Amino acid sequence: MISKNLESFIQMLSKLPGFGPRSARRAALHLIKNKETLFVPLINAMEKTAGSIAICSSCGNYDTSDICSICSDSEREQTIICVVEEVADLWALERTSMFNGNYHVLGGVLSPLDGIGPDDIGLNELPRLLDDEELNEVILATSSTVEGEATAHFISEMVKVRGKTVSRIAHGVPMGGELEYVNSLTIAHAINGRKAI
Amino acid sequence: MISKNLESFIQMLSKLPGFGPRSARRAALHLIKNKETLFVPLINAMEKTAGSIAICSSCGNYDTSDICSICSDSEREQTIICVVEEVADLWALERTSMFNGNYHVLGGVLSPLDGIGPDDIGLNELPRLLDDEELNEVILATSSTVEGEATAHFISEMVKVRGKTVSRIAHGVPMGGELEYVNSLTIAHAINGRKAI
Repeated sequence: MISKNLESFIQMLSKLPGFGPRSARRAALHLIKNKETLFVPLINAMEKTAGSIAICSSCGNYDTSDICSICSDSEREQTIICVVEEVADLWALERTSMFNGNYHVLGGVLSPLDGIGPDDIGLNELPRLLDDEELNEVILATSSTVEGEATAHFISEMVKVRGKTVSRIAHGVPMGGELEYVNSLTIAHAINGRKAI
Repeated sequence: MISKNLESFIQMLSKLPGFGPRSARRAALHLIKNKETLFVPLINAMEKTAGSIAICSSCGNYDTSDICSICSDSEREQTIICVVEEVADLWALERTSMFNGNYHVLGGVLSPLDGIGPDDIGLNELPRLLDDEELNEVILATSSTVEGEATAHFISEMVKVRGKTVSRIAHGVPMGGELEYVNSLTIAHAINGRKAI
């Protein structure tokens, strides 16, 4: 008894991560209730985004220009590059404002069991970046899963043969985390990676 | 370091119920990643919905026509009306296919403390519906909050003076609910509302 347009709209909303049929209905009703203040502005913002978004041909970030604002920023250090799995990881790093180099988004990790090899993720573009004379350090920020570690190892070999510095982000107890609630593997990493004070 | 379009899009997404900044970012990335299969179709569905949605002038439901498909369905019983708080409640009732009468959506409940009186919700349209000679029963399906009960009481008085039947939906232990986990007020209602078998 819901109109077809509305039904297909709710069905598509429910495909968003974090949404199910129930929360999609709730969101749809919220949008309809706030048509002028939220629904229409959101449609406009989505149209603008969909119309202008591009994958940066240099790092793999999403931006409105082909070369993203990070890659085209000459104030950033060109000597250091941080390799991440996904654009979401790049954004997370950018929010910290702790890293002022460039990025390389792989778009996945090596996973032989799933048939994902070096050619399927952005690894074949890496040699070009690594051969850049200006570059002298690579930070590996892939996730700490088996696949993430394997990918980090694979890339570290590529960097080492070129005689450049390669490092892995630190793994350990998160800030504010209580030891009691941290898993054993993380604690093991925290002890192995201890630092002299 | 995220483009302005993208940022305002994510900010608006985060205003949806159930979304925060983090899940909005995740949803935005999911949409961008699936641009052709989800992002563009979703924009189209939203545009269609925003362009065609109307509030039924008879019952208050959302539909693509001014008189909604429920009100204009002559197969439905015109003798019985169910009063609900929100369109979401109407949809929930429709999903059960248990009710074949008409609806009246109040769009809220009486709440003197918040300054919400009969004129602020769809109560002043009710006399017109109640005076309809065909109508002979009103089911009150407002929520079981203090305000919902007060609203139900208010309406029941309006119906009684017109000499028509008025009923309240049953409150009790939900189907599949374990007594152990049901709150005391609900159990009290379930005992008071017990039925001979």
